[in-house]
Amino acid sequence: MKAKLHIVKVGGKLMEDPKELEPFLHDFTALDGLKILVHGGGRTASVYEEKMGLSPKLTGGRRITDAASLDVIVMVYGGLINKSLVARLQAMKCNAIGLSGADGDIIRSRKRPVGTLDYGFAGDITQVNGRQIETLLRSGLIPVFCPLTHDGKGQLLNTNADTIASQIACSLSDFFDTGLYYCFDRPGVLADGEHDESLLQSLSRQEYRELEAAGRISSGMLPKLHNAFTALENGVNRVKIGGRKMIAKNDIPYTNLVL
Amino acid sequence: MKAKLHIVKVGGKLMEDPKELEPFLHDFTALDGLKILVHGGGRTASVYEEKMGLSPKLTGGRRITDAASLDVIVMVYGGLINKSLVARLQAMKCNAIGLSGADGDIIRSRKRPVGTLDYGFAGDITQVNGRQIETLLRSGLIPVFCPLTHDGKGQLLNTNADTIASQIACSLSDFFDTGLYYCFDRPGVLADGEHDESLLQSLSRQEYRELEAAGRISSGMLPKLHNAFTALENGVNRVKIGGRKMIAKNDIPYTNLVL
Repeated sequence: MKAKLHIVKVGGKLMEDPKELEPFLHDFTALDGLKILVHGGGRTASVYEEKMGLSPKLTGGRRITDAASLDVIVMVYGGLINKSLVARLQAMKCNAIGLSGADGDIIRSRKRPVGTLDYGFAGDITQVNGRQIETLLRSGLIPVFCPLTHDGKGQLLNTNADTIASQIACSLSDFFDTGLYYCFDRPGVLADGEHDESLLQSLSRQEYRELEAAGRISSGMLPKLHNAFTALENGVNRVKIGGRKMIAKNDIPYTNLVL
Repeated sequence: MKAKLHIVKVGGKLMEDPKELEPFLHDFTALDGLKILVHGGGRTASVYEEKMGLSPKLTGGRRITDAASLDVIVMVYGGLINKSLVARLQAMKCNAIGLSGADGDIIRSRKRPVGTLDYGFAGDITQVNGRQIETLLRSGLIPVFCPLTHDGKGQLLNTNADTIASQIACSLSDFFDTGLYYCFDRPGVLADGEHDESLLQSLSRQEYRELEAAGRISSGMLPKLHNAFTALENGVNRVKIGGRKMIAKNDIPYTNLVL
């Protein structure tokens, strides 16, 4: 029987509110079995860009990462957020190790080609070194990934954290019984984005396509759902989207993705 | 016979000049045997403090780290400098992994007690987990340490990089044949700080004490030398202070510390 592995992505407002983050980290620490945390941090990066007199450039929820913006992102994602999370987890006796995709050559990416838009230093993942992650996990470490990757030629690249979580889960599904959990500040996927009561407790790829065609899924949720189904279709055993309590309690509603 | 381990500290202007840093990283990559890089970054931190409208506070070459300054330091040391070095090394096929002392609970420290001066969030090392570093080294990874540690209660602390290099070397001297190399922008310890020709090719603790008493050692060199002798007195086999070429070539003068 394969060992259980939980891959938890945390993002959104959940990350910035210590009253939410602290109990979330406790619940993460309490998770039974092997585990990996993946974090975002776009809002904090924008705050620091403004502190340095830069204007955050976003289009359709995606960041345009120019050279100055990349420096800030590397500082905020790889430094401030990642190391602070590691220190908080260590205080909870969770033996965390903070990583970018460059560390141990774990996640390689390619600078996104310039199309109708130039996303700048944004990286699309080309390769995840699941064996290296497995080695760290087996030695008792809990990897905490920030959303940075590298191109193998010395360039760091800004990479979507939802995609990182999904690709890591896929790369490890041969070795582990893998669950992927997207935790954010909503209770799950909503059929009506304004109302928590419209939570979908289950969602298949087919239902997702229909909702998307009807314009019922918010644009921010589309890449998350795409990543979620990719994981499910590539050997990941469980994929759930929900609020922070989802990982701790069985009676909290969330969206369970099904094939 | 113990395996060879090189612990290289890089700091000063060497870090900020790509024309110096790039060949240094190549020489580091070419070093035979196991190796660890430890970096500083105070000047870059000061640049970013100023970009954010903060005034870097330094006294006797040591930083006063208030809360706002700590955030910048965590961003610059743990993020910008550490991850950029890792990406550069990866491009040279050096399988680097960037670490703070919080990662893997490798270096614990205690906030420096307030004496005549309050250094703020400065940490004095209490414990180095050599076994964890050894595990990473034996799995083929090359640790790259930034000068951050943690107190085990969730607090990151700013810690002198020379001390980190020395303490890491001491913690590993039981397992490896250990050499410690302080690389900076001077050719070594100078009897007359203004003139490179006054390089001391060898320096004992006794000679160091005499030079110190005579006021012949620059204040910036004192903690480096203290750390260097501590290493030598705690099982580290070789301790050298010199320019960047010291690690690559045998015919470059440097200061060799002796007991």
